[in-house]
Amino acid sequence: MMRGENEVYELICKDMRAKRGRLTTVHGVIETPVFMNVGTIGAIKGAVSTKDLEEIGTQVQLSNTYHLHVRPGDNIVRQMGGLHKFMAWDRPILTDSGGFQVFSLSGLRKIREEGVYFQSHIDGHKIFMGPEESMRIQSNLASTIAMAFDECAPFPSTREYMESSVARTERWLVRCKDEMARLNSCEDTINRHQMLFGINQGGVFEDIRIANAEKIAELDLDGYAIGGLAVGESHEEMYRILDATVPHLPENKPVYLMGVGTPANILNAVEYGVDFFDCVYPTRNGRHGHAYTDNGRLNLLNARYETDPRPIEEGCGCPACRHYSRAYIRHLLKAKEMLGLRLMVLHNLYFYNRLMSEIRDAISEHRYSEYKEAKLAGFEAGLE
Amino acid sequence: MMRGENEVYELICKDMRAKRGRLTTVHGVIETPVFMNVGTIGAIKGAVSTKDLEEIGTQVQLSNTYHLHVRPGDNIVRQMGGLHKFMAWDRPILTDSGGFQVFSLSGLRKIREEGVYFQSHIDGHKIFMGPEESMRIQSNLASTIAMAFDECAPFPSTREYMESSVARTERWLVRCKDEMARLNSCEDTINRHQMLFGINQGGVFEDIRIANAEKIAELDLDGYAIGGLAVGESHEEMYRILDATVPHLPENKPVYLMGVGTPANILNAVEYGVDFFDCVYPTRNGRHGHAYTDNGRLNLLNARYETDPRPIEEGCGCPACRHYSRAYIRHLLKAKEMLGLRLMVLHNLYFYNRLMSEIRDAISEHRYSEYKEAKLAGFEAGLE
Repeated sequence: MMRGENEVYELICKDMRAKRGRLTTVHGVIETPVFMNVGTIGAIKGAVSTKDLEEIGTQVQLSNTYHLHVRPGDNIVRQMGGLHKFMAWDRPILTDSGGFQVFSLSGLRKIREEGVYFQSHIDGHKIFMGPEESMRIQSNLASTIAMAFDECAPFPSTREYMESSVARTERWLVRCKDEMARLNSCEDTINRHQMLFGINQGGVFEDIRIANAEKIAELDLDGYAIGGLAVGESHEEMYRILDATVPHLPENKPVYLMGVGTPANILNAVEYGVDFFDCVYPTRNGRHGHAYTDNGRLNLLNARYETDPRPIEEGCGCPACRHYSRAYIRHLLKAKEMLGLRLMVLHNLYFYNRLMSEIRDAISEHRYSEYKEAKLAGFEAGLE
Repeated sequence: MMRGENEVYELICKDMRAKRGRLTTVHGVIETPVFMNVGTIGAIKGAVSTKDLEEIGTQVQLSNTYHLHVRPGDNIVRQMGGLHKFMAWDRPILTDSGGFQVFSLSGLRKIREEGVYFQSHIDGHKIFMGPEESMRIQSNLASTIAMAFDECAPFPSTREYMESSVARTERWLVRCKDEMARLNSCEDTINRHQMLFGINQGGVFEDIRIANAEKIAELDLDGYAIGGLAVGESHEEMYRILDATVPHLPENKPVYLMGVGTPANILNAVEYGVDFFDCVYPTRNGRHGHAYTDNGRLNLLNARYETDPRPIEEGCGCPACRHYSRAYIRHLLKAKEMLGLRLMVLHNLYFYNRLMSEIRDAISEHRYSEYKEAKLAGFEAGLE
């Protein structure tokens, strides 16, 4: 199956370089800029269900291919009708390629032209994953958007290593595209409209990034991600790479900055034309008692909240703030009661989803720069 | 404040000895027989919120006085406006007296006429709790129904020990009643309509149970509990004690069998005239992968459910069964993802709440005995 007429990215408007777009998929429309909510193994951490995601305004859910391949197994998910049916979520899902986990979770691994040999982080058994395997697994999961299999080179890497790594990732990308086309043309494929995003790499070397961006742009993929950032370099270096690279990716395709980031990171990256984001911060920090607000982060474990009757954030419409006080949530966190983690995660994801909605409005109304400055000033002013 | 005109137990009908009743409280009506959902520290385990409880048909929530006294502290809860406001739950709450935890959780303890000296299970600091202290703590929590401070004597106990223990618990009950009357007459008490249930004790000695029941019935309390059962004696002994004791408690008052039990226990105990139940089974077993159904218990960790697309129970209207499959919930439980525990607990509590609703209907329609037999046969037939 080729890309359908209905699977298109529409650039709605620009405010300087910031883009507001709309990606139409077989699982519905994604308004960008968007923050994807991360549900590693087919569930958001913090006992958040797909019904909760609908309530907090989640547009896209991100699941991890490697984790689902290891448990329950992508063959099981396929047998259950794909990830959408398995986790009862009918809106878009993006799956990563598994590459990042292969490189970050696995101890022993060997990178070869054909792919990567490594050991399962659960039971140590040997696994091989290359471009074709990653596409087949993601096709079994039947996500809306599949990510290309790439090497996320370590930071820092030498120029020599980065050049050879990026060249191999480019060769892998062609294989990903071919395999995805083959899979989408099979009659027994669950989602024959599965999209493929390529991934730009090159570390902090602007010239490698640009050459790679121009090369992969020619493949006319459904979207393009910028990988290998937020891996140890400074925020300034990250923005410098975005500034240099994004103009070399097709403007009429969505741009996804992988694994980023804080609300401030997102506000800044949008200004370079990024459409998609994902990050574990709202879930992970929520589980550690940190709540995001327009006035900066609160640590709910702080004694000052012991008898604070206010919601986490005044005026917030999330399921936690509508009903529960800081004092109650603090009590639950102190007592290690699961409900405390759940309420924190619901608030933080709602905060991120609302931030993206505000960002889209500000771009539409051509006041993005002022909006961003005011928002960043609020975060700074209110820090505990 | 004396018992108001509106705080009454109404015996709606009887089917043999089974009672269907209605307890009107300042926090709304409780239809009995009822199963109270246990939220130890002011939250149901499994990340279940008070909004969830409304969805699964919970009428009464039970909280543990001892746990809340230790953390966050009943003074904190009082400052937050009482437990209802603290946990955002406007329906009835019953608090236990703290006695059971004092006797079961605490290592070093000394029982004296004035009360019990013991150590906090959290940090070992010395605590004293007697009848007056328990009433004051429960008054601070401002629950709908307070339980009298009693000794739940160990099983087995000698007749001599049980006689002296019950005699002391009777003296404590008079002190509880006096202190509760005083607290309810104070202008700054949050819930001046707080009810007090006395507790019948006597272990497996029928004559001690009966003498105690007749004595405490004279105190004209708002309700009567049967304590000290389900502590190690056989089910047959438990039913023998219920058979002997319940007729000596006032029929026009609610009867509460503490800490019981399995669905089968409840079905049998209702036949002796019990109105109130509470038990950690649905939450605890749910967290261990055991789901209650009309066809017996399922262990969702069992490999046979790996690709089972059915809900836990066909036709069940709970938030888990309406959306998620056995295969998905099993995957979550295997991956130790919190959402799995949450879905299990929601199902099990819904199952118990629905069971009680069926029980009430069967009593109203004078077909309780047949209903019970059919239900027990279903549990037996379907056991894995």
